Amino acid sequence: MTSSTGFSRRALLGGAGAGLVAGAAGGVAVGRPAGPAPAAAAGLGSGRIPFHGARQPGIVEPQQARVHLAAFDLAPGAGRDGLRELLKRWSQTAARLGRGEPATEHENRIAADAGPCSLTVTFGFGATLFDRAGLADRLPPALEPLPDFPEDAIDRARSDGDLWVQICADDALVAFHALRVLQQQAAGTAVARWQMSGFSRTPGAAGTAPVTGRNLMGQIDGTNNPQPQQPDFAAKVFCGSEAPGWLAGGTYVVQRRIRMLLDNWENLPEDRQERVIGRRRSDGAPLSGGTEHTAVDLAAQNPDGTLAIPADAHVRVAAPAANGGAAMLRRGFSYHDGLLPDGSPDAGLLFVAFQADPARGFVPVQRKLARGDGLSRFLRHEASGLYAVPPGAPEGGYVGQALLEG
Amino acid sequence: MTSSTGFSRRALLGGAGAGLVAGAAGGVAVGRPAGPAPAAAAGLGSGRIPFHGARQPGIVEPQQARVHLAAFDLAPGAGRDGLRELLKRWSQTAARLGRGEPATEHENRIAADAGPCSLTVTFGFGATLFDRAGLADRLPPALEPLPDFPEDAIDRARSDGDLWVQICADDALVAFHALRVLQQQAAGTAVARWQMSGFSRTPGAAGTAPVTGRNLMGQIDGTNNPQPQQPDFAAKVFCGSEAPGWLAGGTYVVQRRIRMLLDNWENLPEDRQERVIGRRRSDGAPLSGGTEHTAVDLAAQNPDGTLAIPADAHVRVAAPAANGGAAMLRRGFSYHDGLLPDGSPDAGLLFVAFQADPARGFVPVQRKLARGDGLSRFLRHEASGLYAVPPGAPEGGYVGQALLEG
Repeated sequence: MTSSTGFSRRALLGGAGAGLVAGAAGGVAVGRPAGPAPAAAAGLGSGRIPFHGARQPGIVEPQQARVHLAAFDLAPGAGRDGLRELLKRWSQTAARLGRGEPATEHENRIAADAGPCSLTVTFGFGATLFDRAGLADRLPPALEPLPDFPEDAIDRARSDGDLWVQICADDALVAFHALRVLQQQAAGTAVARWQMSGFSRTPGAAGTAPVTGRNLMGQIDGTNNPQPQQPDFAAKVFCGSEAPGWLAGGTYVVQRRIRMLLDNWENLPEDRQERVIGRRRSDGAPLSGGTEHTAVDLAAQNPDGTLAIPADAHVRVAAPAANGGAAMLRRGFSYHDGLLPDGSPDAGLLFVAFQADPARGFVPVQRKLARGDGLSRFLRHEASGLYAVPPGAPEGGYVGQALLEG
Repeated sequence: MTSSTGFSRRALLGGAGAGLVAGAAGGVAVGRPAGPAPAAAAGLGSGRIPFHGARQPGIVEPQQARVHLAAFDLAPGAGRDGLRELLKRWSQTAARLGRGEPATEHENRIAADAGPCSLTVTFGFGATLFDRAGLADRLPPALEPLPDFPEDAIDRARSDGDLWVQICADDALVAFHALRVLQQQAAGTAVARWQMSGFSRTPGAAGTAPVTGRNLMGQIDGTNNPQPQQPDFAAKVFCGSEAPGWLAGGTYVVQRRIRMLLDNWENLPEDRQERVIGRRRSDGAPLSGGTEHTAVDLAAQNPDGTLAIPADAHVRVAAPAANGGAAMLRRGFSYHDGLLPDGSPDAGLLFVAFQADPARGFVPVQRKLARGDGLSRFLRHEASGLYAVPPGAPEGGYVGQALLEG
């Protein structure tokens, strides 16, 4: 039995007398105890990110410990009506799960016992969706396919897709439960195309201070990410009036599965790794001096007159100043899918980046990186996708409503 | 830069002046701040499980959020000397990482910034190791290969192996870092054979009360696990004088990769799922009545005279009383490796069970389950391994020392 010190859906759903609790929940979160919140209820499990609002969740919030990324293709014959009904179901479910409520009475109870664990579900639309759903006239021009970049080794079976779903949570069972429920609800309307899973630091693992994450190369990654408090943040990340009306306030997301050649990387001495990146490995400070958040000085020189930040260093080639101010909100996760046949790790970065316009964000930066970045020798881009991410849904509405009913 | 409210290896290792900190650490954990412990240092990141002791860690401790399971085969020519040196390196590294210290000065810093996060590393020896290391005369008879069970579909490439390593931690980056370091240290001595990754509930996700975990079928799993406070716990789980001297106080572990046919399972109505298991899905109470921890009454009848726990219910067939008292300490993790080619989930249970003697633990129970368990229709055993897990190493010693030097 559950104790009053744990928050539990079991206590509410359990036993022969339990009725349709899911339908009875209003403003009260089913996943929390009714009494005074115990200490842990202020912790990891109780984290709750609203689904409804001007923006979809899972974009500006701190990264959760676990992610599932998935794409679905619309089933033949589903059409615009099928898509609309699916997005209604999915939106309703994402809102319930985000509140810590069960999705349905008969669902698999993998997530029972747990709080919402900061679950977010984010939906995006691939270019192929528009034709398939009879919406070709509403295809945003910015959703044109990404160009091929030098050294790309893209597996199309793990790329693209009509519908993109990002599920994040601080508990792996809560995240998996959401994936299963959404996949079941797609049955007959949309078919799973690919799925990938990843991870980020667990809250509390590195203490309470905000710490920029590290990737599987051991490098601090994300120092220069746009911050919500910056005045141009929204303009960099979210679509304005240049986008179709149904997408205003939304964004575009680029996803890349980027395998890291860790065996090669880890064989490099630390000072060579640092020159490849342009930052110190220990604390992320630029090689031009200072601390992690000191601005990179691209002109700084070593005593011998050489550039402190080498010509092909990642931070130099990727610098917004070198790319017409291009910026993206990167929200990538690490992945590890075991061993490849040659014994090397199938591991790297599930790159996820939100931006107002990919033609001014990811595309120009990646063009430069693929040609001039010293880091690219240690990376393989293996999958790729670009999706339009509609704005958030208001209470009672659903994601994509303005596209489908506008 | 790091703040004093976060515990960070960066502050200790960072900057040009940092020396060989790893070697300087004595009783003080490098992963913690020197000052008064901040609130979060009592939390997830600071969890610290000693490597040294009578038993290896990762057996009786509560499950962590993340696991890597890996097997290695001894390289040709490594022999007994190579094995000994590897086990020394691995033991020293496991002890350091468990204290939150870096493994070496030049390691990949994936785990920098984080506390030890309850990291444990557990080592086991497969039957094939003994021949390869010139120790054939010391092969424990109980390490004979597991029999083939009906319906087994074992992939030998993901089974067996000379050396078994279980890495658990509450943070995925900390766990991956340990895997990488141990794999690097094996170079030239042992070759990675297979790797699998899994997950369990994140601490705090379900509040503060102890709650039995759920598997991906949504079922509470582990209610009947032996508990350390039970008088016969050690006799069930750890080897006594019947084992070879070097293994006394050790244990045997059976690992099975058990895929769940979740599409089929989730299509079953809840009451049919419950009859397959013999417990209520909501709270784990046996169908014979009571609450989760009420003893299962195998004789109990429904009002119509039928058995409350059906004849093929999992709890009946697996009950220790029905298997000569056989018991194992199960410590399994869920896994999810994306989609199979047919669109179904490649997901299920990484079954890990510790026991004093597999011939009185896993083998008789699985023999019965494979033939009579209603649940087996929803499971596929795809990989299998049996390993002897030596006792723990004292300070200054290493795991397997009594085998290699005894």
